[in-house]
Amino acid sequence: MTLETVSEARSFGGTQGVYSHDSEATGTPMTFAVYVPEHVAGTKLPVLWYLSGLTCTHANVMDKGEYRRYCAEHGIILVAPDTSPRGDDVPDDEGYDFGKGAGFYVNAVQEPWAKNFQMRQYVEHELPQVIAKHFPVDMDRQGITGHSMGGHGALTISLRNPGKYRSTSAFSPIVSPIHCPWGQKALGGYIGDDKSAWREYDACALIEDGARLPELLVDQGHADNFLEEQLKTHLLEEAVRKAGMNATIRLQEGYDHSYFFVSTFIGDHIAWHAERLKA
Amino acid sequence: MTLETVSEARSFGGTQGVYSHDSEATGTPMTFAVYVPEHVAGTKLPVLWYLSGLTCTHANVMDKGEYRRYCAEHGIILVAPDTSPRGDDVPDDEGYDFGKGAGFYVNAVQEPWAKNFQMRQYVEHELPQVIAKHFPVDMDRQGITGHSMGGHGALTISLRNPGKYRSTSAFSPIVSPIHCPWGQKALGGYIGDDKSAWREYDACALIEDGARLPELLVDQGHADNFLEEQLKTHLLEEAVRKAGMNATIRLQEGYDHSYFFVSTFIGDHIAWHAERLKA
Repeated sequence: MTLETVSEARSFGGTQGVYSHDSEATGTPMTFAVYVPEHVAGTKLPVLWYLSGLTCTHANVMDKGEYRRYCAEHGIILVAPDTSPRGDDVPDDEGYDFGKGAGFYVNAVQEPWAKNFQMRQYVEHELPQVIAKHFPVDMDRQGITGHSMGGHGALTISLRNPGKYRSTSAFSPIVSPIHCPWGQKALGGYIGDDKSAWREYDACALIEDGARLPELLVDQGHADNFLEEQLKTHLLEEAVRKAGMNATIRLQEGYDHSYFFVSTFIGDHIAWHAERLKA
Repeated sequence: MTLETVSEARSFGGTQGVYSHDSEATGTPMTFAVYVPEHVAGTKLPVLWYLSGLTCTHANVMDKGEYRRYCAEHGIILVAPDTSPRGDDVPDDEGYDFGKGAGFYVNAVQEPWAKNFQMRQYVEHELPQVIAKHFPVDMDRQGITGHSMGGHGALTISLRNPGKYRSTSAFSPIVSPIHCPWGQKALGGYIGDDKSAWREYDACALIEDGARLPELLVDQGHADNFLEEQLKTHLLEEAVRKAGMNATIRLQEGYDHSYFFVSTFIGDHIAWHAERLKA
């Protein structure tokens, strides 16, 4: 489990790093970003996972997410994984919404994807071990968030692992892949035609099937072009209402799907996670 | 003077826009970014110019500068011009440090550059008229800042126009193009061999020749790879000391030349400009 340092830069008193390692789960090198705030040597900090959306790498939120100020303020480490395996030997699709850059946080079972597209295993199990070994993190204080496909990742990973994440939030999440074109293409391609197998990758279905979170914070732009066809926030509102789950789902007037939106509200989210992670 | 809206997105309650127009100065279309915070209709806001560095467009600071939070907080409009003319008909150089992306905020007199590379005229005169006409700006309250080559631009433009900018600051500026390879290549190429003509494009020379600013704020990363060969902050320290000019020049331990550095201190700079622009 060797870690290669791709780059490190000082920012807001801490260190924004980019690292690479050979992943067993994906069979490829994987790159990720970690921000470690200034802290007393020997102390361990809570960690917030940020999962990115379609077409993104580790770099999008690192460049445009504006999280460092708040992580420094609250003493929280932020980890941003890539969204898929990469490399010339990794199969791909012509669309932006399948294959590279579109791992959907699933363990693929269909060929030719199954060999490399094991992003669920990677994000849920392998990368946390790498992070625990190499960074000053308190793994008993983990939170998770993400944007769009990454919001889907954050919700489903947390719903499937009760108690593992003390706090869960999302920006513009795909709340029900079963019910939108992005999700149908991804789950059909990676998992296959048996739709019962899709339910563990669908936040609304997981809640319907009994999974619960103690709390949830979601922000969604009201002017988001993907809201109606792909994101369908109302399905999550229905699911949490039926389940009696404690969730704050906010529609933000005038905001779109971009990082201009995410960066506006990431301070709120980090403060909200910090309250729960440091309680 | 028609303005084309390339994109607009809501961010921190205001609007981050990208616009394009046909420039008389450069003879090309020019693209720029403007952030307008939420404000009472009919009011006019102070404006801060942000000039970017080598290889940058309007987009680098827009994506990575993290200024919107502070502009929203202080009610300040930020304008980020491109760093050169663009287009297939515009001459270029193989290096990243000359030609496209490297206008150096000069009016070129050498061929083939003179026709398009009139960035001094564009930034000092033409674009301010466009901004005054199309955005809710109070042109009596302008500040100017920039990064690297753009720090050079901010310093020299302000030094040559006493009283026009109420506040001037810079991140990692090239303080004396006459004395560094980037500057020698640019001024030699755009202006020619007569080094006396270079002095109006050199902050230290302008101060030596009598130009003054009432105040100046500069932040420079101490771990910046370009510090020794290109930026030479100590030359500015000497120039302001000899001139008895009021300047705060801070070396920031551990910080490099990147936007991880700029974004860390841009909040300080915007607050500093706001104090002077709103006094």
